[in-house]
Amino acid sequence: MALINENYLKLTGNYLFAEIGKRVNEFKKNNPNSDIIRLGIGDVTNFLIKKILKFDYESRGINLAEDEIFVSDGAKSDTANFQEIFGINNIIALTDPVYPVYIDSNVMAGRTDSYNAQGKFGKIVYLPCNAENNFIPLLPKTKVDLIYLCYPNNPTGMTATKEELKKWIDYAKRNKSIILYDSAYEAFITEKDVPHSIYEIEGAKEVAIEFRSFSKTAGFTGTRCAYTVVPKEVIAYSNNGKTHVLNSLWSRRQTTKFNGVPYIIQKGAEAIYSEEGQIQVKSVIDYYMINAKIIKTGIENIGIKTFGGINAPYIWLKTPNNMDSWSFFDKLLNETNIVGTPGVGFGPSGEGYFRLTAFGNREKTEEAINRISKLQI
Amino acid sequence: MALINENYLKLTGNYLFAEIGKRVNEFKKNNPNSDIIRLGIGDVTNFLIKKILKFDYESRGINLAEDEIFVSDGAKSDTANFQEIFGINNIIALTDPVYPVYIDSNVMAGRTDSYNAQGKFGKIVYLPCNAENNFIPLLPKTKVDLIYLCYPNNPTGMTATKEELKKWIDYAKRNKSIILYDSAYEAFITEKDVPHSIYEIEGAKEVAIEFRSFSKTAGFTGTRCAYTVVPKEVIAYSNNGKTHVLNSLWSRRQTTKFNGVPYIIQKGAEAIYSEEGQIQVKSVIDYYMINAKIIKTGIENIGIKTFGGINAPYIWLKTPNNMDSWSFFDKLLNETNIVGTPGVGFGPSGEGYFRLTAFGNREKTEEAINRISKLQI
Repeated sequence: MALINENYLKLTGNYLFAEIGKRVNEFKKNNPNSDIIRLGIGDVTNFLIKKILKFDYESRGINLAEDEIFVSDGAKSDTANFQEIFGINNIIALTDPVYPVYIDSNVMAGRTDSYNAQGKFGKIVYLPCNAENNFIPLLPKTKVDLIYLCYPNNPTGMTATKEELKKWIDYAKRNKSIILYDSAYEAFITEKDVPHSIYEIEGAKEVAIEFRSFSKTAGFTGTRCAYTVVPKEVIAYSNNGKTHVLNSLWSRRQTTKFNGVPYIIQKGAEAIYSEEGQIQVKSVIDYYMINAKIIKTGIENIGIKTFGGINAPYIWLKTPNNMDSWSFFDKLLNETNIVGTPGVGFGPSGEGYFRLTAFGNREKTEEAINRISKLQI
Repeated sequence: MALINENYLKLTGNYLFAEIGKRVNEFKKNNPNSDIIRLGIGDVTNFLIKKILKFDYESRGINLAEDEIFVSDGAKSDTANFQEIFGINNIIALTDPVYPVYIDSNVMAGRTDSYNAQGKFGKIVYLPCNAENNFIPLLPKTKVDLIYLCYPNNPTGMTATKEELKKWIDYAKRNKSIILYDSAYEAFITEKDVPHSIYEIEGAKEVAIEFRSFSKTAGFTGTRCAYTVVPKEVIAYSNNGKTHVLNSLWSRRQTTKFNGVPYIIQKGAEAIYSEEGQIQVKSVIDYYMINAKIIKTGIENIGIKTFGGINAPYIWLKTPNNMDSWSFFDKLLNETNIVGTPGVGFGPSGEGYFRLTAFGNREKTEEAINRISKLQI
């Protein structure tokens, strides 16, 4: 059962500027022709959310309200910060290998024990994903409260089918758990049946939060913009069993600890949805996915098994001769001067794997594969 | 004695990408002519920090290193997030009235008891600032661990002299406390003797963190950029009495939970330091400070006592006839259609006060004062 951070219940009901807004709106209603001058604080607009709702959700038959979308400065920040609204005593489950931010942010918050000899933090439930299970995690055997899922997956580049995701939704409903679904790489999906949003799966709006990123979609690394979907149906509990709407808690967290995304950046994000923007984004994604294909084919040609790279910009490879990840890192660096990421850095089940990304320019990517083709394995 | 968040000590020493960086740098040293291709992650640059060091600090005789400056998306986020690297059992002191973010972020983290009938959160040490003490807080009578100070002050618009700040530095040294110094409004200082940085005061580098904001300086509201200074001398303690360098903890927090400021925004911030930028910034600040003067004079002309507005864009006024803050809010809204901010919203000592800001355009500001001049008090 997912428990909230009960410290939030201590916060006073009327946030100063919310109360001011309420009184001003009431005054306006009664005095529609009044010319109000604000010597308090400024106004905020939100044009971007309308586009998100229309293009990312309505187009897939998913209905969400404007105040269920929270625009932010990155899926990294959001996936790191979201745990703050939950209590310390929740049990966290995550796939292994995994994006390290999910773990580290929970370690910092005190939801784990120490790092142990198995390369794991105590109390966290690790769900191994490897070639043997085709990178599809089994449901946890013990009860867990918060579940991090990332599809298309970083680091493995693999995806989950609707049927697989449905099992998780059902698990979450049964156990009053919450799924934190990171789909930052959804724009890279090329195959038809792969779901782009967790909300394509029935019942997800009751138990799932979704994280999305413009930085990945439009290839604007260094131009921080993302958003998080928090449907109002998603609830968690206080220790006395009372239910609490996560949307309100996250709203309170964001209004207190975050101040919005620069206007110019939001305008850039909005442009992604224009006709011209859609064409440009598609061409950027296509470019990277051709890189992915070049890398995947090149690696397979020298007899190394690869995964991912079809619906994600990541190629996950099995190191040759059961080499450990860091030895392969050193070999690749020394013999080809190419820098990749050791799989074990993403968790103990990543040992013996290695991640390459398609986010390079074409020339460098081809040169890299040319060098790798001469690698002695 | 300021205690660290000991959960940080559980984090594994070698953050994946740091270890990769280390190995790549070593390889480069031994193979200076190698042409390295990164299929891991991208590079980061930092041009803005050099400008900050030169213009904001060296010009005032303050020497800081590049890795003591952390560029961020806002002083609001930084002042809200910084508490995360400290343990739950620190006692917080803050001036009253105060910027609500300091309080709320600590409430969320669990460092306080509930909100009580006096309008205060239990465990927090409130330091009253009012007309009687000329808005200069007394040193706390009990030991406190973390002290939030904001000068020029939001909401009162008042400043602190070097002598006053020296008392706080000495207090912090004596008690192994840490000062969280918010100088987001330093660019608005017009009087000569008012310190712009806490580091102008001897010993501050051992006990103080400084928060700065470009959003306020260059009037680019909605264009989120700020920075925080964490000198390497500043230490806090674990329960076993061991010392820990805050700079490392904050660096770990930021690399895990934050992903940097958009390049275009950092370029905008950098432009503030150009010759042309300096002239433009001065003109923006002058514009707002003339607004401040118009408001301050206009309010005083109808017999209401004001504070601030000379080294800050805020005018803090004493409500007439001992009216409470919200009654004055309603009166001003109803009789003049002007929206300001009730002082009590910033803490119980703000009761009977009211904040007006100079961040409007000239025409609206003049119109507002014209309306206020007819106010019946």
